[in-house]
Amino acid sequence: MPFMPVTDSMFLIGESREHPMHVGGLQLYELPEDAGPDYLSKIYQSLVADEQSVQPLFRRRPRRPVSSLGQWSWTTDNQLDMEYHVRLTALPRPGRVRELLELTSRLHGSLLDRHRPLWEFSLIEGLEGNRFATYSKVHHALMDGVSSLILAARALSTDPDVRDMPPVWAMPPLDKPAKTDDASGGPLELLENLRAATQDVAGVLPAVVKSANTALREQASVLPFQAPRSIFNVQITGARRFAAQRWSLDRIKAIRRATGATLNDVVLAMCSGALRRYLLELGALPDRPLIAMVPVSLRAKQKRSEASGNSVGSILVNLGTHLEDAAERFAQIQDSAQIAKRSLAELSPLQILALSGLIMAPLAFAPIPGFVRMTPPPFNLIISNVPGPPRPLYWNGAKLQGQYPLSIPYDGQALNITITSYADSLQFGLTGCRRNVPHLQRLLGHLEDSLAELEKAVL
Amino acid sequence: MPFMPVTDSMFLIGESREHPMHVGGLQLYELPEDAGPDYLSKIYQSLVADEQSVQPLFRRRPRRPVSSLGQWSWTTDNQLDMEYHVRLTALPRPGRVRELLELTSRLHGSLLDRHRPLWEFSLIEGLEGNRFATYSKVHHALMDGVSSLILAARALSTDPDVRDMPPVWAMPPLDKPAKTDDASGGPLELLENLRAATQDVAGVLPAVVKSANTALREQASVLPFQAPRSIFNVQITGARRFAAQRWSLDRIKAIRRATGATLNDVVLAMCSGALRRYLLELGALPDRPLIAMVPVSLRAKQKRSEASGNSVGSILVNLGTHLEDAAERFAQIQDSAQIAKRSLAELSPLQILALSGLIMAPLAFAPIPGFVRMTPPPFNLIISNVPGPPRPLYWNGAKLQGQYPLSIPYDGQALNITITSYADSLQFGLTGCRRNVPHLQRLLGHLEDSLAELEKAVL
Repeated sequence: MPFMPVTDSMFLIGESREHPMHVGGLQLYELPEDAGPDYLSKIYQSLVADEQSVQPLFRRRPRRPVSSLGQWSWTTDNQLDMEYHVRLTALPRPGRVRELLELTSRLHGSLLDRHRPLWEFSLIEGLEGNRFATYSKVHHALMDGVSSLILAARALSTDPDVRDMPPVWAMPPLDKPAKTDDASGGPLELLENLRAATQDVAGVLPAVVKSANTALREQASVLPFQAPRSIFNVQITGARRFAAQRWSLDRIKAIRRATGATLNDVVLAMCSGALRRYLLELGALPDRPLIAMVPVSLRAKQKRSEASGNSVGSILVNLGTHLEDAAERFAQIQDSAQIAKRSLAELSPLQILALSGLIMAPLAFAPIPGFVRMTPPPFNLIISNVPGPPRPLYWNGAKLQGQYPLSIPYDGQALNITITSYADSLQFGLTGCRRNVPHLQRLLGHLEDSLAELEKAVL
Repeated sequence: MPFMPVTDSMFLIGESREHPMHVGGLQLYELPEDAGPDYLSKIYQSLVADEQSVQPLFRRRPRRPVSSLGQWSWTTDNQLDMEYHVRLTALPRPGRVRELLELTSRLHGSLLDRHRPLWEFSLIEGLEGNRFATYSKVHHALMDGVSSLILAARALSTDPDVRDMPPVWAMPPLDKPAKTDDASGGPLELLENLRAATQDVAGVLPAVVKSANTALREQASVLPFQAPRSIFNVQITGARRFAAQRWSLDRIKAIRRATGATLNDVVLAMCSGALRRYLLELGALPDRPLIAMVPVSLRAKQKRSEASGNSVGSILVNLGTHLEDAAERFAQIQDSAQIAKRSLAELSPLQILALSGLIMAPLAFAPIPGFVRMTPPPFNLIISNVPGPPRPLYWNGAKLQGQYPLSIPYDGQALNITITSYADSLQFGLTGCRRNVPHLQRLLGHLEDSLAELEKAVL
């Protein structure tokens, strides 16, 4: 068995109790009309029984024999314990989304067992409104967040009548390049491009992260603002808190149409208003505006052929959180985004992934003692907006109602906001350090209030 | 804040992903007759709301400032997050004990968050038969297994009509010595003595464990048997499997009466027959008999005044697992126990606790690379029989149906069997490394078969 690529093993080396290195996904499904009380239990039984279909990727586990002098390698697990990896669990009454998020927060906060393939999958029953949920957890050494999003989408179907669909771990691997015809212009194209760019980079990631940081600092130096210290830019603990909610794309598009802003601007304005309310409540609003690091697509400005190298950039956006008036905040964000785009930090997709926490950002900061306390943050939080499937998807007849990504907070970045689109809605996933981002759920209410405030101001 | 005693900090230093250093307790309760659907939810709300009543012991958290050069100290957590420590959870349908044990196994396998006080408490709803359960988890640095059993019992009442009873974490500390009148002859006396003996021993534990091991090896050398290698005596992984069941004390006492054996002999014979069946099924039964390390009370032989120093000893018992006939196995165990008692290893209570995994046994072996593979085991597993409360207990009107201890497996000791008595039953708790003790639940069926076999053979 060959040694593990440095890209993989760094996630194992860099992992600690405070920095679990796994990404998660929460999916909510509507129960099919003919679902009996044993619906989930039967799915669970069939998943657990079908060990044969597990793909090699989901069978490999890390190994560090004494003779390897500390080097990690991958080995195949010949004692695959399906009942360990696949779990059937339940929500306490009344089974609201509140109970679901509480459970998901806990599941996301515990470490994966390194003696086994680095994934877990939970079927969750007892969700009100005739629904069920799944939570999946994959170690970053096995698969990055983008790949897991792609794989999850591929495991579903647009056809509600398809049955006997394989689970994610039985899906063929993503290693082959996506067919150009399929991918071009499709909503997952950006993801596919990002993923493709992360191949063949063993050993260069620390340099990539370093140069990405430098690029961001240079960008910051020419911009007319500087990130303040905030409660989000501190050392973190191991426990997590997760909050998630979706909003109708129509509401966001209406604001976009009325103002000429980009969809991303509207999303940032929603986040800005919500963060302001949240920090005010805690008495922790900095005098200066929060700065967000925002990955942006450069597709429109560039030729297709250049896409793979520079299809994504990153901008620092002044969120205007110091402004009380929603319209003024929105204007500030639009201005700031335009200025930032002019002095755009053209990061490679790999650099973006690294910085956005989707690849390996924690490793860039975590190993340096005191780094977080001594260095002012280049930005206060990352807000990523990742395009997802545009049409409703089904899993064995169960309609996917929403899917939310759970990200990796790290030292200095205690809160991460990732947004993905699905069908006619935008899905917000907020992952925070439980200790340093208290009452994270309140941000959901604040996001709604913030959107309503925007609607009132500009419609 | 002073540095932490070495006894406490060693549990933090010695802890790893593979060796979580917490003990657990599973309690099953009958729902009161007037319990509505919100019964547990209301208890949960009241527990979470009452942060004030949390005792200082349950507020302290470990801390290792950079300036301390790696030394741990205790500090008080001023941001106690009750919703983190106290959880309301549920079993999936059909809510059998099987589902309860699966959940408990998972809860017992994850590490406690060191940034918070080192305890968790789960209220578990959805248990069939009009019942609910609780699972509690306490780090060994905070409290040893014996203290947690005592505290748990003290938090309950023999009176079914008492209400507004405080939870365990609101109980006054155990630091004061128990009143002699209360303790003498009581079922918890042994526990209290054990606990008392563990005070004031900072810094000596490694030596204690070493001398205890030496004593056991000396005992083994004069006994006519030697422990074989077995599947239980291997390096372990982090995931756990837990199985639990209770048996009527009357059944065990009937065998005792018919044979003149001790109650402990009958329990060991039950375990022996069960282990034989289990290992046969796996094709892993050693040719030579398994050897159990069994803490025994020496009370009957000694004066009360000597009790605190030598009230407990340890014997190595030949379990006769190589014998097919139940009566022959039982005879072998009785003989072996008598021989062993003659050459009794008179360990101090602290040594017993150390070796029984109730105090710190993992630390004795774990830090030595290759120890497990190179050294033949002095014994194959620990079987502890700990006396518990003799009368039915209640928690706010809910009758305690059973309580089961979850122990700490460690390298070289992948399975631990701990038995506690409660009211008219014996409660078996089996804690194993999930990977190395597969299908642990089967041992429960085998224990019943083994008991039935004994009844057939001797009654």
